[in-house]
Amino acid sequence: MIEGIAFDAYGTLYDVYSVERKCDEEYPGSGAGISRLWRQKQLEYSWLRTLMGRYVDFWHVTEDALRYTLAELGLPADEGKIEALMASYLELEMYPEVIEAMARFGARKKAILTNGNLRMIEPLVTRTGLDEHLDSCLSADEVGLFKTRPEVYQLAVDHLGIAREHLLFVSSNGWDVAGAKAFGFTVGWLNRRNLPPEELGVRADYVAGNLLELAEQVEGA
Amino acid sequence: MIEGIAFDAYGTLYDVYSVERKCDEEYPGSGAGISRLWRQKQLEYSWLRTLMGRYVDFWHVTEDALRYTLAELGLPADEGKIEALMASYLELEMYPEVIEAMARFGARKKAILTNGNLRMIEPLVTRTGLDEHLDSCLSADEVGLFKTRPEVYQLAVDHLGIAREHLLFVSSNGWDVAGAKAFGFTVGWLNRRNLPPEELGVRADYVAGNLLELAEQVEGA
Repeated sequence: MIEGIAFDAYGTLYDVYSVERKCDEEYPGSGAGISRLWRQKQLEYSWLRTLMGRYVDFWHVTEDALRYTLAELGLPADEGKIEALMASYLELEMYPEVIEAMARFGARKKAILTNGNLRMIEPLVTRTGLDEHLDSCLSADEVGLFKTRPEVYQLAVDHLGIAREHLLFVSSNGWDVAGAKAFGFTVGWLNRRNLPPEELGVRADYVAGNLLELAEQVEGA
Repeated sequence: MIEGIAFDAYGTLYDVYSVERKCDEEYPGSGAGISRLWRQKQLEYSWLRTLMGRYVDFWHVTEDALRYTLAELGLPADEGKIEALMASYLELEMYPEVIEAMARFGARKKAILTNGNLRMIEPLVTRTGLDEHLDSCLSADEVGLFKTRPEVYQLAVDHLGIAREHLLFVSSNGWDVAGAKAFGFTVGWLNRRNLPPEELGVRADYVAGNLLELAEQVEGA
């Protein structure tokens, strides 16, 4: 039934909050606050720019979100610090179970489907050795729109050559789960932060605490 | 130069955080937390549903956001409480300077341009006596999309019959300011909460702390 798997990257395979330590080094005492607001604004800007028809790539969105975050928190926008924090996005920590879980999903085609542009996702995938387990790395940048626009999810169908209902889309982000389910994927939600489901009119097909648990559920189905 | 004015409603003319007291009555001690998260999720859901192509009206979005908020905060979703809190959205407080400021803007055409559907915005406008100062009340519901989609801002051009650059759009919401400016309006930002501008590649033409200050700036320009 499940012929291929597309994984969201940020928050799902890689811990976006792992930048907190670096934030705290650059702005002592403010690491947690920066990390949280930075992520929130990064997502907001991706949605708003897509709605406005003013696409810029995710690297640009991420830097804009960081600059806003520093301003809102009343912290100085030192260019050296900004450069250091942006660089930390290329060194996010991979969740510990990811490599083992990839094997559990077997020989099925596997891809990353991310908002991130290739310049920011490929170094991360290579550094963490995940490239050996993936058939492709697909970016919203190819269509110049961000999730939850259907054109982004369609990339996985087109590149993997698998019908949407036979594709398992995996994300830890509730809003991404909703977008993917509305598109028509079979969807697995990694509820890593123990949150309630988003009230967007659709529900995930599988819910698990991490990727290994999800693999077990899918194999047992 | 400015031939007409379109006002955002929620946060701009009406204080969305004025529901806090009612939230605190229904869920003692949690009023501020509910009020903040409810507003954030309301906006997120309006953006995500538009991106997903799954429009429901703003009343529906607002109730969904409330249900999510209660779940995330671990509060019981009592139907009576939800009904009471939703009703408070029809009784938001108008900012104190609004009526006086309307006169300062003179005989120009004036409209509300809101995400809210008419069923939720019209009772508020009537109750607060603002209807006597407005030519029309325009809702995103007419196009089945939410801001920052250009089709929503276009409603003001079409209904008021004024070119976008001769229309002053007024909002307290930084993301709405960005959307309106990207669309091509002349834009006044009521920076009621003393926030930095959103990093979305555009800036407001006027920035003021409240609507009276904005009227003075526009008349002095």
